[in-house]
Amino acid sequence: MRHALRISYRGTDLAGWQRQDNAPTVQEHVERALTRLAGSTVSVVGSGRTDAGVHARAQVAHVDLESPLPCKALVLGTNTLLPDTIRVLSAARMPGDFHARFSAVGKRYVYRWSTEPVVSPLEALLRAALDARADLDLMAEATRVFVGRRDFAAFANAGGAHTTSVREVTRCELVRDGSHLELIVEGEGFLKGMVRSIAGTLVEVSVGRMALDDLAELFEGGERSQAGPTAPARGLCLERVFYPPELEALDVFPVGAAWS
Amino acid sequence: MRHALRISYRGTDLAGWQRQDNAPTVQEHVERALTRLAGSTVSVVGSGRTDAGVHARAQVAHVDLESPLPCKALVLGTNTLLPDTIRVLSAARMPGDFHARFSAVGKRYVYRWSTEPVVSPLEALLRAALDARADLDLMAEATRVFVGRRDFAAFANAGGAHTTSVREVTRCELVRDGSHLELIVEGEGFLKGMVRSIAGTLVEVSVGRMALDDLAELFEGGERSQAGPTAPARGLCLERVFYPPELEALDVFPVGAAWS
Repeated sequence: MRHALRISYRGTDLAGWQRQDNAPTVQEHVERALTRLAGSTVSVVGSGRTDAGVHARAQVAHVDLESPLPCKALVLGTNTLLPDTIRVLSAARMPGDFHARFSAVGKRYVYRWSTEPVVSPLEALLRAALDARADLDLMAEATRVFVGRRDFAAFANAGGAHTTSVREVTRCELVRDGSHLELIVEGEGFLKGMVRSIAGTLVEVSVGRMALDDLAELFEGGERSQAGPTAPARGLCLERVFYPPELEALDVFPVGAAWS
Repeated sequence: MRHALRISYRGTDLAGWQRQDNAPTVQEHVERALTRLAGSTVSVVGSGRTDAGVHARAQVAHVDLESPLPCKALVLGTNTLLPDTIRVLSAARMPGDFHARFSAVGKRYVYRWSTEPVVSPLEALLRAALDARADLDLMAEATRVFVGRRDFAAFANAGGAHTTSVREVTRCELVRDGSHLELIVEGEGFLKGMVRSIAGTLVEVSVGRMALDDLAELFEGGERSQAGPTAPARGLCLERVFYPPELEALDVFPVGAAWS
């Protein structure tokens, strides 16, 4: 029986989503917890990977369970077996052809900075520090360059598996609230390290190390080294995974009403 | 030379503010760091204690330094010697009679809850979970009972040193933003555990375990056991310490401009 899970994690001390040897990953923790709960091996398929140190407000994964289990029991039971940096927020029974990765039509990432001279420990786990000299207006202007269907090769870190580096970014927007600065990026799919490379490039523009006018040519066969550095993982969060209306309409990921 | 420090800490793994044997406290960490930086013993005097697990956005302390040190160097130098759960946000030279505790005229605490069925690990360090059945309107109404000059004996945990349990609460207000619920409490001074006892009592009212009408008699010689339980430390944060206008006017605690 196929189930979708909405999973949130604080990535600080985790080695990312994807199962790997000798490092604590989210996928492995959730698989272990579910296997123990279900009494038989459970594989967890996520909507995509997140890198070490990156957070998720709502990653989505699917699992197949042999025996039926009420969704509430599934959520609460799994959570008692997970470290407190990982929580299943909700679960829902899904059509058998639902696939966390292949059914997804888009994702929203948010990159967070603080513009305080010293970032409070209350915020430092989820925010990177932004240089006080950063020109935020210039930074906001630069976000526009990234919207559209482009070759993001210059923004892809090594190690990703992709046949083309062309991606469509449908939203790239800077939101400011006092000393809190958030970059919201949405798109159908992303290359490895792409959002953090965009964030790092925006920082370069904001402090005058890169010119706004030079950004366009990064999309004309630019090398990774020409774009800005990869921004620190701590600032990045996978906020949401989007699915087609007919799946969302099934109330797949109820917020605040997970107990169906 | 007297200096004031604005200090922020994530209390999760700290044993509170006050120096003690065999446990990591904020006061001890800051004293050790400053002593190492200054090359001679430095004592740190805080505006008051916070309990184990409680956070501070801006605790205030004063220190006397033998040799002058630019405030920026004091902040940055101290921070390199502190664990990442504690940061000095800013420093300022103060008149010799400034006293972090005795010059203070009030404090603002905030207690935070999440009303999500499962609290995300992105928020769980700073928010307690609130029962989904809580009646928030009733809870908001109950906050009014706490405003004024009252005998808070029923809200004081054992171990505090005070000659009278009468305190004046000048603000007690519930603010809701989606699934985020914040209780803002201001007053001249607080008894040990007082804000968490108020928070715990409000929860009892919200879920119907205590009647709104019965709260008033808690101030008429009520016992600690009659009020609600002490709410979890993780939800409480010392947000701000207030000083008289003439001291605030000295730009003692510049926010976002700490480099004087």
